[in-house]
Amino acid sequence: MTAPPTPSAARTALIRRAAVRFCLRRGWAPVTEMPLPNGRRADILALGPDGGFAVIEVKSGPRDFLGDAKWPDYRAYCDRLFFAVDLDFPQELLPEEVGLVVAEAAEAALVREAPAHPLAPARRRALLHRFAALAAARLAAFEDPTGVAELRAALRVE
Amino acid sequence: MTAPPTPSAARTALIRRAAVRFCLRRGWAPVTEMPLPNGRRADILALGPDGGFAVIEVKSGPRDFLGDAKWPDYRAYCDRLFFAVDLDFPQELLPEEVGLVVAEAAEAALVREAPAHPLAPARRRALLHRFAALAAARLAAFEDPTGVAELRAALRVE
Repeated sequence: MTAPPTPSAARTALIRRAAVRFCLRRGWAPVTEMPLPNGRRADILALGPDGGFAVIEVKSGPRDFLGDAKWPDYRAYCDRLFFAVDLDFPQELLPEEVGLVVAEAAEAALVREAPAHPLAPARRRALLHRFAALAAARLAAFEDPTGVAELRAALRVE
Repeated sequence: MTAPPTPSAARTALIRRAAVRFCLRRGWAPVTEMPLPNGRRADILALGPDGGFAVIEVKSGPRDFLGDAKWPDYRAYCDRLFFAVDLDFPQELLPEEVGLVVAEAAEAALVREAPAHPLAPARRRALLHRFAALAAARLAAFEDPTGVAELRAALRVE
């Protein structure tokens, strides 16, 4: 008897959590669901100790990957681009010029390093600012949920 | 009949919360208890939309202020330095060359703007990196407390 298949959203959440832990273990500071200036949202944008940015795009399965023609757009906002998938994913589908992180339960391992395509200095600065401001604002909302909710309500009214 | 005096630590927490809300209302992204390269810890380091950094140092009362000879050290890690106090604080004690934010209950108002002393570009970049990495790491700990606790335990053992 085999276990029933994990639904796509739950699978995405598990892979993402494992990929976030992978980042933390490497000393990368991750922000999830990071909105980018091009209107897209990176599953994970992680800042390395050297100032480099990695995007890790989570793919729950072949359908999720094949239905997304826009993943190359993330290259413009990182130095290295990775996919994160789980062990069930058919890795031969994935392009070799993208790094690969594979999740097994709560942990994830680097299977293929991503080639570097360094950001231009001005974009790196702007991205770091955006990353810092978003992380601090979300952190403030965790630390003072009442205050942030009241502020949001006030700003809607004003 | 007057209310009993608020203990110093509780007063600090109240002023700090009001000062954080003040930051958010101005569009500044605040991080509390921010460790700095000189070994000190800023009560609040806030990043403005223009990339400027403000330190807001909370003073619960005259004793707290008079016992701290090192507050000028914060200038080296911000563009503007403020004190945050509550309405009971004797404001004439505070130096005029520092900005002033005054808390009343959960809100705070700007009483005196701080003069700007812009950071050098290299220090600004390094501070922004430190701020971003710390905010993202703390946020990750809120979002996945189990994973971060396990990681910390593993790093202690390794």
